[in-house]
This record gives sequence, C-alpha cells and structure tokens, in this order.
Amino acid sequence: MILALAGGVGGARLANGLVAVLPDDQLTIVVNTGDDSEHLGLSISPDLDTVCYTLAGINNLDQGWGIANESWSLMGAIERLGGDTWFRLGDQDVATHLMRTMMLRDAPLSAVTSFIAGRLGINHRIVPMSDDPVRSMIETDQGVLAFQDYFVRHPAEPRFLSIRLEGVECAKPSPALLDGLENPDLQAVIICPSNPVLSITPILAVGGVRERLMASSAPVVAVSPFIDGRAVKGPAAKIMIELGRATTTEGVIEYYDGLLDGILVHSEESRGLTAEGVAVWSCNTLMASDADQQRLARESLAFASSLR
Amino acid sequence: MILALAGGVGGARLANGLVAVLPDDQLTIVVNTGDDSEHLGLSISPDLDTVCYTLAGINNLDQGWGIANESWSLMGAIERLGGDTWFRLGDQDVATHLMRTMMLRDAPLSAVTSFIAGRLGINHRIVPMSDDPVRSMIETDQGVLAFQDYFVRHPAEPRFLSIRLEGVECAKPSPALLDGLENPDLQAVIICPSNPVLSITPILAVGGVRERLMASSAPVVAVSPFIDGRAVKGPAAKIMIELGRATTTEGVIEYYDGLLDGILVHSEESRGLTAEGVAVWSCNTLMASDADQQRLARESLAFASSLR
Repeated sequence: MILALAGGVGGARLANGLVAVLPDDQLTIVVNTGDDSEHLGLSISPDLDTVCYTLAGINNLDQGWGIANESWSLMGAIERLGGDTWFRLGDQDVATHLMRTMMLRDAPLSAVTSFIAGRLGINHRIVPMSDDPVRSMIETDQGVLAFQDYFVRHPAEPRFLSIRLEGVECAKPSPALLDGLENPDLQAVIICPSNPVLSITPILAVGGVRERLMASSAPVVAVSPFIDGRAVKGPAAKIMIELGRATTTEGVIEYYDGLLDGILVHSEESRGLTAEGVAVWSCNTLMASDADQQRLARESLAFASSLR
Repeated sequence: MILALAGGVGGARLANGLVAVLPDDQLTIVVNTGDDSEHLGLSISPDLDTVCYTLAGINNLDQGWGIANESWSLMGAIERLGGDTWFRLGDQDVATHLMRTMMLRDAPLSAVTSFIAGRLGINHRIVPMSDDPVRSMIETDQGVLAFQDYFVRHPAEPRFLSIRLEGVECAKPSPALLDGLENPDLQAVIICPSNPVLSITPILAVGGVRERLMASSAPVVAVSPFIDGRAVKGPAAKIMIELGRATTTEGVIEYYDGLLDGILVHSEESRGLTAEGVAVWSCNTLMASDADQQRLARESLAFASSLR
C-alpha cells in the first residue's frame, strides 16, 4: 500500500506514472485542496481536477490545467453579462464544477471526487486531503490574497511572505487518507514533485497528518520539484527563494523539516546520505512522456523500498 | 403606460414588437416564472430568458429557445460525467444561469433580471411576475409532473388535467408589476399570444393580480394564440382541448373568465361584439418577421385604445 501526496501538474504526472505501475488497490493519491475556491458560484478544486484529467488522459497539455480540446463559449457569454473572466473556465471544465457543486450539497468531497474520477474511467483512488474546507490565503508584500487571486489573477508575482490555511484547525484527514496513514501495510509515502509550499504544506497541515507520517514506519520519500535549482513549471523556486530557502536538495530536506527519509533529485546531483541523515537518490526527474512518468514512479518505489 | 403579460416564444415575439413601438418608460413586460426550475444546481427561468434573448436579438430561431449559434460542449461533458442531459443547456445559455444563480443569493429575481437584460442591451423593463418562487406542477393522466418534466422530458404528451401552482399562495406581485397595476396612467393590459393555461394563468394567479386587472379602468386585451383553432407553436391547443375548452375566440374569452375587454383574433374570424360583451378585433396575428411583430403590436395598442 502506497500513499502519494500531490498538488497540480508535477504531482499529477508522477501520479499518472504510479497508476501505471501499481494495481488500483495498492495506491491512494492524496490531493491538495487548499487551492479550492468558489467562482461564479461553482465549487472548484483545481488540483483534484488536474490529477483526474491527467489520469483520464483528457488534460490540456498546452495550458497545464483544464481539459484538452476545450471551447470557451460560456466564458464569452459571461463576459457579455459582465461577470468575472480573470479565472477562465472552459465549457467542458464547467461541467465538472457543476456536477461537483450540485453533489456537494448531499455528499462529502471524497465521495464526489470518487464519482467524478469513476465516470472519467479512473480506477485508482484519488482523494482530497480533507472533506473539510481549507483555504490557502497567501500573505504577500501586497497584502493577503486568496489563493487564486495570488496564483491566477496576479500570477504569483507579489512577493510571497507566508501561507495561512484557513479552516485547517478544524479539518480532519479524509477517510481514505486516514485509512492509508493507519494501514499496517503502508509501504511508502511518496511526496510528488509538486510545489512544497503551496501544494504539499496544506496536506501536511491537516490534523495529525504530519505527526502520523513522522511516526510511521513507512519511509517518506520526496521527489524534488527542482532541477538545477529551477522548477520545471510554476513558481515553486521563486517562492522558496522569497522564503529564504535554497532550491537545492538540502533546501527541500530542510523545508520538510525532519519529515523525509529519502529524496529523489535530478541526475546531475549526487547520491548518498546527507548530513541530516536523509538518503539521496538521483535519476532523471524530468517527466516529458508517459514512459518518463512510469520510469520515475518505478525509481521512487524502488528507492522507498530500499529504505524500509 | 402599458403592461404586457407574456410567456415564452409567442409572448416574446409580441413583446419584441411592443418594444419597437413604445418608449422604454411606457412599457412593462411581465413574464411568467411558473416554468422556473432548478437543473444541475442552476436557477433557470425559461420564459424570462426567451423574452430577454428575443429582445436582445440573440434568440435561437431554429430551436425556439436558447441562444443563436449555440455550442454544446458542456452538455457533452455532463453526459460523460453521468449527469442528466434531457434538459439541454447550451454553453452560452449556462452563463446566464450561472450569473442568475449566483446573483439570486443576494438579490431578488427582479433585480437579477434587470441586470441581465441591461447587459444584453435591453432598455425596456422585463420583470418576473413575482420575486417569490411559484412552481407549476402539472396534473396529468400519468401523475403529477414538475413543469419541465411535463413540457420537456415528456414533451406535453401526457393528458393535461390541471395546473397546480406551488407557492402561489405566498407569492406577491413583483414590485414593477404592482407599480404597473396601481399606476393611474395605466392605459392598457396586453395579454400576449402565449399559452393561456401554462403561461398566463400563473401570472394571473399571483396574489391580487387578477382582481386588480378586473377592477382596473384600463382595458385588458388578449391576442389569441390560436389560428384556425391551432396554436402557432407548442401544446396550447392540445391542452385547451384536454380541458374541454374550445380553441376559438369564444373558448379563449371563456377561459379568461370575465377578465377580457377585448380579444384580437386572426383575420379569418369576424369582428364585433360577442355575446359575453367582449370586443373582437381581427387582423393577421401570425408573426413571422420583425415587421409582423410591430404591426401586431400597433394593432393591439390601437384596439386597446379604442376600448378606453
């Protein structure tokens, strides 16, 4: 039994590799919901959608979010009606948000996500970190911004000071996450190469998650999102630097603050054991193709297995 | 000051003629909301939309509802997700429903409708019959059906027994309708050629509307929706016949039960005064073109004026 913690694009890619190499009853993909928001009255879960769309093979590769071959008629009509258009919603994508918004009236996000994933042909478990709302608020040099305000409206341009997770003090882990954490057969926890600050921190902050991972006998292995100090996509490096952190192997280990047993880094960097006692494994962490995703999934699992 | 009572397509066409011949401060178009429903979590007001889209010149002439040059990506995605698809929602149309649903959290339907109409470039007042929810339930030989179940899912095929207006006992006329009814300058009330049973009955049933119209010194003039005993569009004739009513001048006069001062009927029928004391005016009531709509609007106004 493997737990994978994931945010958006990078996380979805490794998750896609993991589902290709693990049977559906041996993997639970736990997804950040700190980015969730409401827009035009719709309940939107960007990271859950990115993971689901990627695993369903309908993700929009050009955009990095949303559905492939998308159309934008609805957005044009919203503009005509004077509605907000800075958060762009494709016609097909809105169908997901409508279904989720409607179903959330009667069911928790876990059940709604499981339904949507099932309809998209996904057999593996994709679960939110929590069924309770957690909202990432970003403190910046331009004031506190709701996550999508920071991330989309002002594309991560304001200087990042800190992340405040509204609601996290009341949020319980989703049932499937809790099952995974308490499962005696838990073999490894893979932290996908998602943004450590924006995507992984919220998952770890949900009641008891970090503590249970620290206490678990299963190794916790992160795949570093940095290659040569830069993120493949998104503002992870910018944010780490604004926090005074290094976008290096050591920087990631230190950011996770005692949580990691091992870290996978890009092949240019060296293998071995760091001063902090964290095992380092290097390989090509760039995932351009499905084959890359599966190779990195296998490397992550083999590395974690070597640490048990 | 003219009040026009309207339902869907036929009502929207005459309303479109009236806006072309009357200044915007001299006309209030009162629209049936008994057809309103919730679908996929969206608040849908089909008759308000048909009137707004028609007056904005963006109505879909082929369908008879919705927006011209519509696309259907969202509906395809809803189908993939296992949602209901019997009630078809176009991509642009959903934008209207999203805006309305969101705005209704904080504002009455009158204000939301006024905003949407304004954004579509409409200067004349389009108002719901009531800001309170009224839901037409159709009693049929196959049981009681919610309006859209009856009208769309089972396209008016079950035998019509009666209409039950849920919520009507608590519904007050919308502020603009009440203003119109109490306006000392009210010159005429035009009942558009909409379905008398499905579209006009709910408006008349809202608290005090029928009584105020009966007591008003302004003439109440209906344009018959029937030509040679048949409706131009929709199930109006079928329903009248199932109710044991005639789809004739007399049948419409009797259906409105003492409300009418005059009725405009298609040119084949005769002019004069009926046994019931209702004035009859005949002209071509078919509205194929904008010119037809404006001609019928002028005829209706002239006829009403002659009855003052």
